[in-house]
Parts: sequence; C-alpha cells; structure tokens
Amino acid sequence: MTTTAGDSTSTTATATAGTGAPAGTVTVGAYLAHRLRQLGVRHLFGLPGDFNLALLDELLAPTTGDGEPALRWIGSANELNAGYAADGYARIRRGPAAVVTTFGVGELSLVNALAGSCAEDVPVVSVVGMPATGAQAAGALLHHSLADGDFDHFVRVAAEVTASATVLRAQGAAAAVDRALLTAVGTSKPVYLGVPADVAVARVSAAPLARPLRVLRSDSGSTAELAAALRAHLAGAPEVTVLAGPRLHRRHLEERMRAVAACDGVRVATQSASKALLDESHPANLGVYAGRFTTSEETRRRVDTASPLVLAGAVMTDFLTGSFTHGFDPDAAVDLQLDHARVAGDVFWGVYLDDSLRLLHEALLERSPAPAPLPRQEPRPAPAPVAVDADALTHAAFWPVLQRWLRPGTLLVAEAGTSFYGAVEMTLPDGCDLLGQPVWSSIGYTLPATLGALLADPGRETVLVIGDGSAQLTVQELGRLLQPGLAAAAPTVLVLNNDGYTVERAIRSPEAVYQDVVAWDWTALPAALGAPGTLVRRVTTVGELVAVLAERRAEPSRALFVEVVLPRDDAPDLLHRLARSVR
Amino acid sequence: MTTTAGDSTSTTATATAGTGAPAGTVTVGAYLAHRLRQLGVRHLFGLPGDFNLALLDELLAPTTGDGEPALRWIGSANELNAGYAADGYARIRRGPAAVVTTFGVGELSLVNALAGSCAEDVPVVSVVGMPATGAQAAGALLHHSLADGDFDHFVRVAAEVTASATVLRAQGAAAAVDRALLTAVGTSKPVYLGVPADVAVARVSAAPLARPLRVLRSDSGSTAELAAALRAHLAGAPEVTVLAGPRLHRRHLEERMRAVAACDGVRVATQSASKALLDESHPANLGVYAGRFTTSEETRRRVDTASPLVLAGAVMTDFLTGSFTHGFDPDAAVDLQLDHARVAGDVFWGVYLDDSLRLLHEALLERSPAPAPLPRQEPRPAPAPVAVDADALTHAAFWPVLQRWLRPGTLLVAEAGTSFYGAVEMTLPDGCDLLGQPVWSSIGYTLPATLGALLADPGRETVLVIGDGSAQLTVQELGRLLQPGLAAAAPTVLVLNNDGYTVERAIRSPEAVYQDVVAWDWTALPAALGAPGTLVRRVTTVGELVAVLAERRAEPSRALFVEVVLPRDDAPDLLHRLARSVR
Repeated sequence: MTTTAGDSTSTTATATAGTGAPAGTVTVGAYLAHRLRQLGVRHLFGLPGDFNLALLDELLAPTTGDGEPALRWIGSANELNAGYAADGYARIRRGPAAVVTTFGVGELSLVNALAGSCAEDVPVVSVVGMPATGAQAAGALLHHSLADGDFDHFVRVAAEVTASATVLRAQGAAAAVDRALLTAVGTSKPVYLGVPADVAVARVSAAPLARPLRVLRSDSGSTAELAAALRAHLAGAPEVTVLAGPRLHRRHLEERMRAVAACDGVRVATQSASKALLDESHPANLGVYAGRFTTSEETRRRVDTASPLVLAGAVMTDFLTGSFTHGFDPDAAVDLQLDHARVAGDVFWGVYLDDSLRLLHEALLERSPAPAPLPRQEPRPAPAPVAVDADALTHAAFWPVLQRWLRPGTLLVAEAGTSFYGAVEMTLPDGCDLLGQPVWSSIGYTLPATLGALLADPGRETVLVIGDGSAQLTVQELGRLLQPGLAAAAPTVLVLNNDGYTVERAIRSPEAVYQDVVAWDWTALPAALGAPGTLVRRVTTVGELVAVLAERRAEPSRALFVEVVLPRDDAPDLLHRLARSVR
Repeated sequence: MTTTAGDSTSTTATATAGTGAPAGTVTVGAYLAHRLRQLGVRHLFGLPGDFNLALLDELLAPTTGDGEPALRWIGSANELNAGYAADGYARIRRGPAAVVTTFGVGELSLVNALAGSCAEDVPVVSVVGMPATGAQAAGALLHHSLADGDFDHFVRVAAEVTASATVLRAQGAAAAVDRALLTAVGTSKPVYLGVPADVAVARVSAAPLARPLRVLRSDSGSTAELAAALRAHLAGAPEVTVLAGPRLHRRHLEERMRAVAACDGVRVATQSASKALLDESHPANLGVYAGRFTTSEETRRRVDTASPLVLAGAVMTDFLTGSFTHGFDPDAAVDLQLDHARVAGDVFWGVYLDDSLRLLHEALLERSPAPAPLPRQEPRPAPAPVAVDADALTHAAFWPVLQRWLRPGTLLVAEAGTSFYGAVEMTLPDGCDLLGQPVWSSIGYTLPATLGALLADPGRETVLVIGDGSAQLTVQELGRLLQPGLAAAAPTVLVLNNDGYTVERAIRSPEAVYQDVVAWDWTALPAALGAPGTLVRRVTTVGELVAVLAERRAEPSRALFVEVVLPRDDAPDLLHRLARSVR
C-alpha cells in the first residue's frame, strides 16, 4: 500500500542500547532504513561502491528493538538493472522502492531508469553514497568526480528526472529524509537523496520514527467542492463511460475501480498501460482504448462519443492515444488525476486520486433516477487456433497460443516493441496484470523489472515476454532472475528471437546495418549466467511451443527459459498499423 | 591526430547530383558525417531508436563525390557500452569519436560514459536523434519523454557532463556543428549535439566543408610571453624533473615528450594514468609517481624535491597523487595544461599543451651552460619467478607472469580495481601503452573500451585484464569484442575471477552480502554471446597460466578468453596499501 504506512512501529529508543551511542538516537542511514520499512519496503536494490559502503552497512544493519526484519539486499550486476528492478518492485507492490548506488559512476548509470520511473509515476527512492561533506566543501579532486571540484553536477542531473533531489547535511537530515519520502509517495515520482559518507553515520533523534509517514490527505475544502461538482455533473446521466489509466495502479485503486464498474449504467475502457485493470471478462469492460488504433470499433465509438466521459488516472501520451487520434475532447471530460481533478472546466487542486475516485463512486451511486443496467457485453471469444502444429511460429500464432495457456492471476510482463504490442491485443484471464513501460519505452527494462516484480509478489505466476534486441541491453540480470529460491513462483521467460530490432525495422530502413545485433546462443545463457537449473528450450514451430508450455505445467518449481524463433520482419498487427502511421 | 584534420577533402558540390536536392547543399546529417570524417573518424558507435533512424541513414549514407568511405557502423548491445567503446576509440586514436543514440531512453544510458570522458579529457561527440522540432515546440506528450511537454530535460543533463550541449535548429545548423566539434577537439572534452528528426534531413550549404576543421592555434602573444618565461625559469637549471600526465596522450604528444626526455639533465616521472608514456626502459624515466604510494623511494624523493619541477599534462586527483600525499607544491611548479600554462605564478591563457610542450623542449635545449648528462638509471630487473607451476595463482604470481609474457608494443587495458593496481606496478616492455580509467574509475568501462581501442588500432596486440565483478556490468559486448574479423589482431581477455567486488572488500566490510555477485560460468560466455570460435581456458595455477599464454602465441589469429581464478581477498600490494589509507 502506498497511501498509508504499512506497519506500525515501536519506538527505537532501545535501538542504541549497548552501542555507546547517545540514547534515543540513530544514524541517518538507520533512520532512512526505518522510514523505508515503515512504508513497506522490504528489499534494497543496488550496487556497492567506494562512497556508499558505510551507508550500506547502516541501511542493512539488523534492526534491534523493533522486531522488524532488516532490509534484504538485492545486488544487481549493474546500476541500470538495479534501477529497473526497483521500478518493477514499486509497481507491483503499489508502493515505494529504494535503490542505492555510489557517487558519479554508479548513480549516472541509473538515470535512464529514474527517468522511466518519473515518466510513468513510479516512486523509486534513489539513495546515493557521496564523498564526505568536508571533501566536497574543499572541492577535493576525488575519483568518481569530474575532477573540477564541483560535487553538485550529479544532483543537478537527478533533479531533471525526479520530483525532488536533495543532498543531506547532518543538520536537519531526518526532516529532509521525511520530506523526500513524502514527496515520493505523494507525487508517485522518484526522488533523489545524496548521502555524504559522514552524514550516513551521523546521529539524529529517533523520536520522529514513532509516527510513521503517510501520504498527506486531500484538502478538505477542495474535496467537498469536488464532491458537489461530481454529483451535479453526473446526477442525471444514465450512461457514464470511464477511461481508466495507469495512475490507478500506482494508487492501488483497482478495487475501487471494480466498485465503480459495478454501478449500473457504467462502462469502463482501459488504456494499454492499464490493460486488465478491470478483468477483461467483466461485463462493464470495453477493453483497451487507443484512439484510431482501438481494436474494437464499438469500444472506439463508445469512448469517442461518451457523454459524460470520465478520465480516471489516464495518461494522454502518443502511444496511449493511438498517436493522438482520440476522438473526444479531454478538456470536456471529467479528469481525475494524481493530485487534482477537473469537472466541467473547474479545477480542484489538492484532491488526490484516491479521494476523487471515491467521490466518483459515491456520485454514481447517488444518481437519480437510478440508471438502468446496461446490456451485458458479449464475452470475447477465445482465439481460434490459427496454425497447425508443424507450422513455423509467427506472431499471429504465438499470442493466441500464449493466451490459451495463461492462467488466471498471472502477471504478464511485456517488453516495449513487438512483445507489448502483441500482449495488448490479447484477452487476459481474470486477475491477470500486464506490466510494461508504454510511455517511457526503454528497451531492456522488463528483464530486471521482472526480478523486482517477483520479489514484490513472490507467490504470483509471472511470465516475461521480451525480444532478443531488448534482452541484450540488460541480460546480465538473467541469472539472478532465474535462480532457484528467488521467489516461491519460478518465472517463465520467453525471448522472442527475431534477429534484431524488429520494432525499428517496422518504422524505417529494415535492411540497415544498424538494425542488426550480434547473434547469441540464447539457450546457453541461463546456465552461463548462474542459473544452471533452469529448464531451457528453443522452439520454432507452433507444436513445439505448445509442448514446452505444457511441460512448464509439469515442472512448476523450475524456472523456464524459452527461445522463441520468429521471422525477422514479422510483427503483431497493431505494430504494423502504428508503424505505418509513424512513417 | 586531434590537432589537425586528418585528411584533405574535396568539395561536396557534386554530392547532391541526381538527388533532386539543391546543388551545393547537403543534409545536416551528411554535413556532420563529413566533418567527422575530416577529423579522422572512421567508425560510428551507438544504437538505433525511434527518433534517430533518419539521422542514422544520413550519417551512414555512402559518400559520393569525395572518394571517402562512409562511416562504419559499430552497433553495441546497449548505450553505456557504446559510450565506453567510443571513449576507448577516441583515446587510442588520439582524436574524437562519435556515438549516436536516441532521445531519452538511449542518451540517458550514455551519461555515465560521457561523464567519464569529461573527467578524463576524451573528446566524444554524443549525437542524439530527437523528436521533430514542431513536436517539441508543441510540447507533445511523446513516448521517450517525461510526458510533461519539456524536451530540454536531457540536454540539461548532458550539459553537466560535457563541454557544450546544443540542440540543432535548421537555421545555423552547420555553424553549430562546427562550433561543437571545435569545442570537442579544442577542450578534449565530450560535447552533445541534439538533432531533431526534421533537422537531420534539412539541407544546408556544403560550402564550409571545403575547409576542414582544425584546433584553433594558441594565442601568439601569450605564446611569446610563455617562451620567454620558460627560458628565464629554466636557463640555469642543470637538472629538470618532469611529471608527465595523461593529457599528453590526449594531445598525441608522446613523441614530443621523448624529445624532452632526450635532453641532457632531464628526468621524467609519469602518472599512473600515463604509465609508459615514455618507455619504461628509457634512461630518463623515473617510473610512476604517486606521492606516498610511489613504488620507488628514489622516484618519490626526486619528484618531491625537484627544482625546477615541470607538470606536463598532469592531473592532480586523489589516486594520481597517492591520496594527495605528493610532497611538492603544484603552485610552485611549471604547469603545462591543455589550454594554459603557469610559470612562477604567472598564468598564460590560450597556450595549448601542444605549443607549451614545444616551448619547454626549446627552452631545455637553450639552457646555458649546457647541462651535463645525468647518470643513467639502472634498468629495472625483470621480476623473478615467485611461484612454482603447481601453486595456486595469486596476484603476486599473476602479474610477473603476465609481464614476462607481454611483447613490446602491446596495448594493455586494465580495469579499475585489482587489475589497474596490478598493472601499474608492472614494468612494461617498450612501446606498450596502458589504457585505464584511474580518475573516473567506472567499473565495467574497459570491456567495451577495448572494443573501441581495437577498432582504432586494429593491428596492435591488445590484452584486457578485468575483474569478474566489473565484467558483469558490461558483459554483453563480449561477443562483439571476441568475434573473428573485428580487427587484424585478435584480442586476449583475462577475467580475474575473485568472486565479487574485491576492491571494495579491501576497503570495508569484506563479508557483507553486497560484496557478492552471482557466480557465472565464465568459460561458457564467449560462445553464448556470439563468439564460438574463441579459444577459451580456465586457469587456477601458475603453470596453467604460463601454458595458456604460450598457447596464445601458437594461435595468434584466434581471440583468447581466460578465466583466471584468484582468491577472494587477494589483491596487489598497492591496493592493500591504498585501502589502508582510505580506511
């Protein structure tokens, strides 16, 4: 849970017993760890480096006196991967994650991941171990610096891709930590905390830890006004259409959204970034809306002509709007956003999505006269088999086979490129969730993100689909992802090997030399990268794919890695259509 | 050569023949490619992405009319690796390199590499394909952006780690390209060029291409004054000690430095970042100086007490000064830097290192009375064998074996950590060069940098020594590095497998969980990552290492990859001493 601190906390007054430190104090590192644990963080991602070792020792120290377990360290092979893993962890646990790197050489490799968290509203706390305050003040020409005496280059870099970027001083460190964490959970954006080596071990009062942090509540005046505006706007509406977006996931509002969808006279479309937020079998679910690229013509028409239309946590970027081909006027819609809402032109600042969605639900229930139930949607038929077993695999065959095999409740992770476009066009079983990165779309993201997702929900069946070009960017995390014991549920990894950057080939110059990648022996990689116990297969035909997926059911405790061989220029239909529009 | 454009150029007036484009014009992309070729760039590093495809097509187009070959594309598996490869290429060719990425998701993964180039004075040109000018002006919510309508976040990021960061407009694009490239070669720092998709194909006059770019000359007035000051300062000095630093490499001044060293009464110490800049057998060579961590007590004393002392292209960071334990006063020394010089307190701005070193040489020759030759240094003895063949390998045994095996002229690349510390303490054969990154010290750097180095000097024997923890960060470049045909000389890669981050264990908390990495099957990786023809070995004893190195001589055309197994906490003596001082 993001919105309220997860666990109660006992006082840490005894934490310093026997250490010779002043009673009632903790180090800044321990303070930060405690605050993170209060927010439900259980794992710490990152890499060690010269300037964060003392900080790591504080962050990972066994807790004493409060009975909580220490944070569990999840080392990654490099910082970008650590950042992606933290992002996936935060998304699936619907709360903050933390990643620790070292000054300069570590943190700068994380910037792309932080920017992705920023673009897609994921509260990742980037903690960076810095040189000691005195060395910084003196402008010492240290390694891992630009050797120009300026130690603020990298906090300024971080400021571009975070909601707040702060370098701690011993004085006021606890308040600065609190403010940064409140910013992360309040804005659902990443934040940056630079911790000089001396500050990491400086002692501060433990007293504030007795009150866990929580997201600040909505402004009560604005909330009352929004409630009235929503009641007035929706009072006589027999049919209300909601376009539900990914920011609902960030606030863990899926259950509230189900309550909204259960109201009579309500239809719900989702964005590709929040596909299956409502079960796709739900009678109120219109499926994914993406402007002119909406698969169902009826869904497109219903959203484009809806009155009233409610945007709930929606994001209006190019891919999510079908390259801005939406047929409705967002300014005329009711718009519920993370920290404000808009109804009929009026903007209500300081009302958080949690509250505005609750008010929407209440307004829907209060409509008078009570609206009639809408005709039930026809359940979407299961895809028909499209190929015989001996046929070579294509996207047209792959996705229906995967769809029929998926079980309810699965987390499907789909990489930007052919994988995500294919996944969006599936109909997912109930309880499934689709994890991708359709706004930032940094290739390579999903492989480490799946590691984080598994740690956040270790009992959940998890399936990653990723292209070969993408997997090359972050492959060094594969061994840790596939290792036995990482999570109760062993993951399934399907690498779609289509010999390069097919998503770029679809857009332009498919024969260009820059579209090629080095050909790897994918089936040798799980063992080489530290997971020799993995069940490894390579499939080229429909029959082989069906067989290996069946085999997976027979061996649920072993991780499965499959190289799925696909034609170079083959792609899901949606990608072909989008690429034509980009060209 | 950095300092003058490499090749003459014919006019490109005919380049547009038959294309229907205005005569005498080229696209901005083609203009940039032509300028890069004029500066001797032959290879282009990077990855494709949605916003750089049109740009890449222009940059890589076959040249017409000028007889030059097109730039050769070197795709990397990810952007960080591409940036490291470009950095290695620039260092070895002693001139600029260029790397192309896409907006946001690509360029941000490059920031760490660019920062390293900035910290260590390497002129890498970062070219980023951006969304079209109109979309930026409109603040469109595009993918690969932060979805906030602000397209300048990332150029501001780049500005922190480059000498100049510019987004091109069609108007004035050619001059902006020229200015950026002049800044790169003039400052020996990276620069950033953002190229919107429409600007990449906009046409500009080809006329400026008739005059190749060159580094601007030193200010003539300052140069004359510096000449006089150096003559006066050195006139009566029978013994002059020079501390030669890595910026001499950046300016390709090794030959001039040899001329300086050949003057009577001159001794030359080098920094670890420029070890073997002068052959280590040269009678004037004092070896590596690093303050209190100088191996030779005589060298330390001679530098610390030198009068006059000349710092030539020296860098005064922590590692290069033995944690600031140098015993001389830098302000009292003659200091020749990239763009200024200082003599007896006077600063001469606008005199470039190329000229100031020439003036130093002239002043040394003009001393009166002519100084006497100094007594010849004793040649350093070859290391004695320290272990018998059956002994398990240690650092104490590894480095002497490697030293005895190295041939003159080899490029030795040594990763930050145990590898670089070990390499610094070797005595290298004549003509050898040591490539490392002792200022920025970003682990993982050398693996892709070796790829770039090989492309810059494809006939040179090249040996990479890298630890297992470091190699994990950038391992996906291994296949391309080891592939047959990359360079005339097949590389040797020695992975020192000591089971984690030994360099950090030496500093603090050796048993901490964060010091561990996933155990890989290193010997399986070359084939898995695309280089099955590699000669792969694993050695645990001195005898095995000796044997495999002998085997390498028998199979010079195949790349060699060796996993060298070392004890977890074993390290070169220099690292142990430095770590004690850090603690």
